[in-house]
Order: sequence, then structure tokens, then C-alpha cells
Amino acid sequence: MEKFRYKAVIAYDGKNFAGFQRQPEARTVQEELEKTLTRLASGQPVLVHGAGRTDSGVHALGQVVHFDLPGRRDVEKLRFALDTQSAEDIAVRSVELVSDDFHARYWPHHKTYEFLVDYGRPKNPLLRNQATPFPYPLDIEKMREALQFLKGTHDFTGFTASGTAVENKVRTITDVQLDVDEMHHLLRFSFSGNGFLYKQIRNMVGTLLKIGNDRMPVEQIPLILEQKDRQLAGPTAAPQGLYLKEIIYDQDLNHSRQ
Amino acid sequence: MEKFRYKAVIAYDGKNFAGFQRQPEARTVQEELEKTLTRLASGQPVLVHGAGRTDSGVHALGQVVHFDLPGRRDVEKLRFALDTQSAEDIAVRSVELVSDDFHARYWPHHKTYEFLVDYGRPKNPLLRNQATPFPYPLDIEKMREALQFLKGTHDFTGFTASGTAVENKVRTITDVQLDVDEMHHLLRFSFSGNGFLYKQIRNMVGTLLKIGNDRMPVEQIPLILEQKDRQLAGPTAAPQGLYLKEIIYDQDLNHSRQ
Repeated sequence: MEKFRYKAVIAYDGKNFAGFQRQPEARTVQEELEKTLTRLASGQPVLVHGAGRTDSGVHALGQVVHFDLPGRRDVEKLRFALDTQSAEDIAVRSVELVSDDFHARYWPHHKTYEFLVDYGRPKNPLLRNQATPFPYPLDIEKMREALQFLKGTHDFTGFTASGTAVENKVRTITDVQLDVDEMHHLLRFSFSGNGFLYKQIRNMVGTLLKIGNDRMPVEQIPLILEQKDRQLAGPTAAPQGLYLKEIIYDQDLNHSRQ
Repeated sequence: MEKFRYKAVIAYDGKNFAGFQRQPEARTVQEELEKTLTRLASGQPVLVHGAGRTDSGVHALGQVVHFDLPGRRDVEKLRFALDTQSAEDIAVRSVELVSDDFHARYWPHHKTYEFLVDYGRPKNPLLRNQATPFPYPLDIEKMREALQFLKGTHDFTGFTASGTAVENKVRTITDVQLDVDEMHHLLRFSFSGNGFLYKQIRNMVGTLLKIGNDRMPVEQIPLILEQKDRQLAGPTAAPQGLYLKEIIYDQDLNHSRQ
């Protein structure tokens, strides 16, 4: 039977996953989806490709995956079957039929990540798996100033885990934002760009919090970018505040611009 | 050593508790607090009295408790000790010294409960323990109309679990509200009153959702109140959407009005 390629947008609670990517002896999002899809394909193995390889504990609201299935399916029925047959910490938000050359990871796209910080004292027990606690004084304006230095095209070597295999560490951040939800004592950092390095966002947030807490100057950001030295940056913020929010493919952008 | 009475405002994630009230062979909020307080009192048993006996799975943002401890303590230090020594699903928001006759449960007060409904399709996996899913069509205006019938002083027998021991089932609901958060696909019901019966709010919400989904007329609410018949009401909504939001003691109200 002829195979067709499908693109799906999924959401998941990262808490009980060892990240997106399949690995031995650990529960991963990729493996969960592949198990369900293989069942739907009457036992024929199905491979899932994800746009972003989120780490252990990191959540997604708009992760994109693609996979091939024999036969042309009704996409809403397929979405419903995948959603209801997946574990309760995964939701399948949409499924569409795409061209055979679509690739969730390699097709150019922009990702938006959000990072939630619970700055309440005491921290909210209901948000302990959905925001990273920081119950210390924070200067919002300083963090907003520092954020602006991250925007643009830079070599982000100083903000990635040392020893990362990727050679080219130049990336472009097209948009940054910091909102404060005073009612729920939440900060929401938002970063959009054409790609992010391993642990880059958590390292940027850890550094921004240190600046907001007045233990580093705002000018540390351009210094880290220039010196490309991970030692100069702040600690890696804990993963439970990080969300892969949305992925937009350049092709869809052009399409909607017509 | 002389004993002093303390009032504390606490928050908890109800998911891993068999409710507030102590019971054999189950993890409860009361027991957790008593264990921590007994440690703080050098092993002398401390009893905790709560204002509301929330059910298994029900959350609190503003539960009030009181307890007696030997010696006069610095309340912020006591709050910090209790907060940091309690399990991570309990937070201690404030502690104050109160008069010896204060009683969290028996002193007249008004409680506000909130109930969150995730009406998204598919449901949000990150909210599965913090909102009750209802991925079906809902008529908000019909539910708002129905809510108005619940406001005021009524015999709520038709909305409580049958066989409840309490004799007088007349209660006053002083305020009702229904807000829609379109971005997060959340409904937020809010009920304030001088007291609520066992499962009353979950039964009211279950009935309101049935009305919103057009499977019951708005006029069913006055009928249930009049007939005092649980059979006429909708199903009991699942506990994970329910929050004990705030408790205000009449005494404090009078005080702040001066």
C-alpha cells in the first residue's frame, strides 16, 4: 500500500519523560508516539521525526512531528485515534497530510520557546512541575535590558553546554519578551529564532535571573557572547519551566503571505 | 511552657492527598502538617484544625488552619520552617498569632471556591491534574443564566451527596461568577458563601456543564432546589478542577471596615 506523510502538532507534559528522543531503558515522547502509530499501522514499524529534541522534563505545547503511514487517512479521525490512544501526558492537537519531502526537523522553521518562573514566596505547590521557582528579589527592567542584548545574530557558544558536537554555533534570535503576571507571581520569558543550541535557553534564563537578582551586570550578556565562555554565564535553569511553544515553517509563512 | 494559638494560610496540590482530613492508611494534608508541627514542638503532639475539609484530589490556594504551640514564636520564622519542612506539594503562605478562642472551622467565615474546566479539544496534558476536561460544545450564556439561580439562600439538598449527616442544608451563596480564558481554553467558575455541603460545588458544576451542553434546561436549577432531589441534578464533576481559593473571617471583615 502506498505510503503518505503526515505532520502532527503535539503537546506534552515533560515531567515523566526522559525527553523527546528515543533512548534505551527510558520513557520518551518519540517512543510513545511510535508505539501508538505502529499499532495504528497494524504492526508495521513507524518512525517519528520531531522538530525539536526537548530535554528531560521540558514541556511542549506545539512540538511538530512527521511520520509515514500506509494509506490515505482521514486526518481528523487519525488525530482523534492518536490522541485518545496516546498516554494521558501527550495530546495530539492537529494532523495534516503533507508532501513526501516535508521534514519536521530539516525544513527551515522558526521556533518559539517560553520559560515560566514562579517568583512567589512561598512557591506555588500547584506549579512545581510547570514553572521554575525563584523566590528572590528580581529587577524586571534590568532583565528586559539584558534580553535586548540577546536579540539578533550571535555566536551563542557561551550559552551552550560545553563539548556540544554542533560546529556552527551562530543562531538568530528574532524576538525576545518578558511579561509579568502579578496575580500568579509568574514571569514569562519568550524567545523566537531559527534554532537554538543544546541548553541554550535554560542557560540564558539562568543568566538573566542572576542579572535580575543583581549578582551580575547587564553588560555580562555582550561579554559572554563576545568571549564565548560558558564559565561567564549563570547556572542552567531547571527544565520544568521550559515550553516548546510553537513552530512555524518558512514555507507556511510564504504561503500565507501570498 | 505557655501555649499560643497560630493561624496559617496554606496552599496544596490535592493530587497526591486523600483529602485534608486525617484518616488511617492514607496520606492527608492534616497529617502532614501535624507531623511537621510535632517535630517543631520537640515531639509534643500538635493537632491541626482546618476550615474546610477538602476531598481527595481537591486543591487549595487559601485553606486556613489553626494549631497551638508551646512558646511565642517569630511568625515569619515559623512560616519559613513549616513551609520548607513540609512536603513539596504543601506551601505555607502566612502564619499569624491569634487569640486563644480563634477556631478555623467554627468562627463564622466566607469561603470562595473556584472550579477550572479545560474545554479545549484535545485537552491540555499539562492541566490534566489542575482542571477538569470537558471537550464538548458549551453555551456560556446559558450557564451564566443558570448560575444566577444558585445565588442567594437556598436548601441545597438536591446538590449534596445523598445520605449526608448534616441536618440543616440551607446555605447562602453570596457571589457567583463564570469567566472564560479563551487563550488557555479554560472556564473559571467561582462561588462564595458562608458554607458549602459535601460535594455541593462539584454537583453544581456537573449540572451547569450539562445545561451548557444543552442536555438540561436552565430552569432545572430552580427545580432541583425546590424538589431537593439529587436525581434531578447532573453528575459530580471530577475533583481536580476544584480549588479552595480564599477564606475570610467575619471578624476580619468587621475589623477592616472600621
